[in-house]
Amino acid sequence: MGLVVQKYGGSSVADAEGIKRVAKRIVDAKKNGNQVVVVVSAMGDTTDELIDLAEQVSPMPAGREFDMLLTAGERISMALLAMAIKNLGHEAQSFTGSQAGVITDSVHNKARIIDVTPGRIRTSIDEGNIAIVAGFQGVSQEGKNITTLGRGGSDTTAVALAAALDAEVCEIYTDVDGVFTADPRVVKKAQKIDWISFEDMLELAASGSKVLLHRCVEYARRYNIPIHVRSSFSGLRGTWVSNEPQGDQQVEHAIISGVAHDVSEAKVTVVGVPDKPGEAAAIFRAIADAEINMDMVVQNVSAASTGLTDITFTLPKAEGRKAIDALERNRAGIGFESLRYDDQIAKISLVGAGMKTNPGVTASFFEALSDVGVNIELISTSEIRISVVTRVDDVNEAVRAVHTAFGLDSDSDEAVVYGGTGR
Amino acid sequence: MGLVVQKYGGSSVADAEGIKRVAKRIVDAKKNGNQVVVVVSAMGDTTDELIDLAEQVSPMPAGREFDMLLTAGERISMALLAMAIKNLGHEAQSFTGSQAGVITDSVHNKARIIDVTPGRIRTSIDEGNIAIVAGFQGVSQEGKNITTLGRGGSDTTAVALAAALDAEVCEIYTDVDGVFTADPRVVKKAQKIDWISFEDMLELAASGSKVLLHRCVEYARRYNIPIHVRSSFSGLRGTWVSNEPQGDQQVEHAIISGVAHDVSEAKVTVVGVPDKPGEAAAIFRAIADAEINMDMVVQNVSAASTGLTDITFTLPKAEGRKAIDALERNRAGIGFESLRYDDQIAKISLVGAGMKTNPGVTASFFEALSDVGVNIELISTSEIRISVVTRVDDVNEAVRAVHTAFGLDSDSDEAVVYGGTGR
Repeated sequence: MGLVVQKYGGSSVADAEGIKRVAKRIVDAKKNGNQVVVVVSAMGDTTDELIDLAEQVSPMPAGREFDMLLTAGERISMALLAMAIKNLGHEAQSFTGSQAGVITDSVHNKARIIDVTPGRIRTSIDEGNIAIVAGFQGVSQEGKNITTLGRGGSDTTAVALAAALDAEVCEIYTDVDGVFTADPRVVKKAQKIDWISFEDMLELAASGSKVLLHRCVEYARRYNIPIHVRSSFSGLRGTWVSNEPQGDQQVEHAIISGVAHDVSEAKVTVVGVPDKPGEAAAIFRAIADAEINMDMVVQNVSAASTGLTDITFTLPKAEGRKAIDALERNRAGIGFESLRYDDQIAKISLVGAGMKTNPGVTASFFEALSDVGVNIELISTSEIRISVVTRVDDVNEAVRAVHTAFGLDSDSDEAVVYGGTGR
Repeated sequence: MGLVVQKYGGSSVADAEGIKRVAKRIVDAKKNGNQVVVVVSAMGDTTDELIDLAEQVSPMPAGREFDMLLTAGERISMALLAMAIKNLGHEAQSFTGSQAGVITDSVHNKARIIDVTPGRIRTSIDEGNIAIVAGFQGVSQEGKNITTLGRGGSDTTAVALAAALDAEVCEIYTDVDGVFTADPRVVKKAQKIDWISFEDMLELAASGSKVLLHRCVEYARRYNIPIHVRSSFSGLRGTWVSNEPQGDQQVEHAIISGVAHDVSEAKVTVVGVPDKPGEAAAIFRAIADAEINMDMVVQNVSAASTGLTDITFTLPKAEGRKAIDALERNRAGIGFESLRYDDQIAKISLVGAGMKTNPGVTASFFEALSDVGVNIELISTSEIRISVVTRVDDVNEAVRAVHTAFGLDSDSDEAVVYGGTGR
């Protein structure tokens, strides 16, 4: 067949049994005639245990050494996985990120991949081996130091290798069956999505869907690498993420791909900002200098009588303290009246390319929320997404109501679009 | 001052507390004006835990993958040690064996160092850093695969780096105070040796002394790197191993350096071998082809009447089965009558360059054994060593008797030679 890149997360290789189970699955792919490259994360809680050790010896571990430490985790899992495969009678070789040619910048703990030179991997698979590659890690172009890619780094390693090797597909194995129309823990009737476009998947990832990280999808879209997200515990077909549905992915284009929610954000309101040019810039420069990533930004028209306006933005709760400090430090220069901080919020997002050509979507979304008495505090939209901020206590009811209103429930008559999950 | 290489074993860095204690000691050496390069082993039982994991996934783990797995252990300890040092306000960088330029052959699990190119280490220490290097590991010249050096590999790494960097001394930190005139667990009156020559240390290591491995001492002798073996738990001066005693090592040359014993060997006797040229060669070719390392080899003159002789050799107990099998397989070609196998033996060795010029040593040795009723089964000698094989049950009494007879006991009037341990 072709060249397949598979990625297995830590929960799939949490112990010796898991490693042996994954080894069988890999060998099956090889037996089907594929060249197989596998990217693997550290076993189960290994990374957390290493972080714990680091904190015992130093309250502020140095980035370079922290990366050196953490990369031991994948070294263990990949070597064990290679052994388990060889024990099944197939040839396997493991490679560190550096050996696999994953070249990054020098930003320790959250390095970005700048090149992949997979010469050793290509040679290994051409010789008939299954190549096992450490996820999450690389080597810096300058200095040749070991780096790690930060959260979700192993998915990015897999997609980057798939791109460099011109793979047919990058299979991301995880502990769920795929990407769902909503979080199944919240919406019992959520359905697995058979196929979703890169664009919709990017919006879902940015809106709180945890299955794939934005960074990994972005990389896959840039190099047009189809991703197949599926469970390492079942043999089921999962969710394909690509530019266009392929031959056997018989799906109608849906108006709405799914409903995502996110309760990890907080809301900061800068009250009484003089409504004149440069004020907003001063606020966001202060936030940017503190290296905080904002999400939604909203400014209402000012009340003409006062000449003052309010600016509101959302950001990860973990960075709330830092944002408040940064704004207070620059209070004189910016010239606002007061700050309000609120972390009892939820963001609910409706995502789907179809909304571009279906003008009623926004109205239906807001009606669904109104019908269950949920108040909207902020609104933000893109071409293919509508997001609102509500009280955190309303989030589950709101998500369920929206999911139903757009015909996404699995037993609804209208739920044909992504029905038939191929099980 | 100069450049010091320090090596810390797994028991010294068994947990976060141990790592912090070792970090302080390293910083002290740096504060004394030295450039410091540190070689570190894996934490405590880490290596055994990794081996256990490997055995869970595969009964016969592949050498290449096994090395990849095991080297994760030093990666963890070295990164943590560098963090702990930085936490004390000093700069430190950790390096894998590969990064440190430890180039080996391609024999996985017991690779030999063939070159050390410590360019990155030199640059790091010249920039004021303390360099932390993973012990026990390297990278193969051909194939650029990760290798491990086998038992005692970290000591060898330390000595090899000390040689390549032209260090003043290689300090081997361990959990005992140094090299003793006999095993202190057997001989209560054993004394720490202040200074010992490379030659005597090599013989002690070959005779059962566990503090330093033969391979490491051999490397140090070849490149004339003084070794200082000392405790990582105390601040005491330990044992210096070098060509000649240095300025403050005021020792008389002793006749005898120490008494070593070894209960890990077994004895194989090949009975009824035709006493003609080529017979011994056939036996030892069979043993060599089975990759067994023999220790002592003894052949008595043959009884003229029969034309047959017996050949006896000792070898590690663990290889006994393999040796018997190899000889039985070649029985027809060799032409012996029978085999005897005996693993209830001990080897007792007296080591000291002084015996070359003191003809009474052998007699005194045998008299001491005779006085306590210990029977001698085999005798083997080198210029500076006499070894005998006895019943294993006699070993402790025999070692104590010999230790006393040669005036090595710490409270004996004659024990001035290596007395005054500098505490």
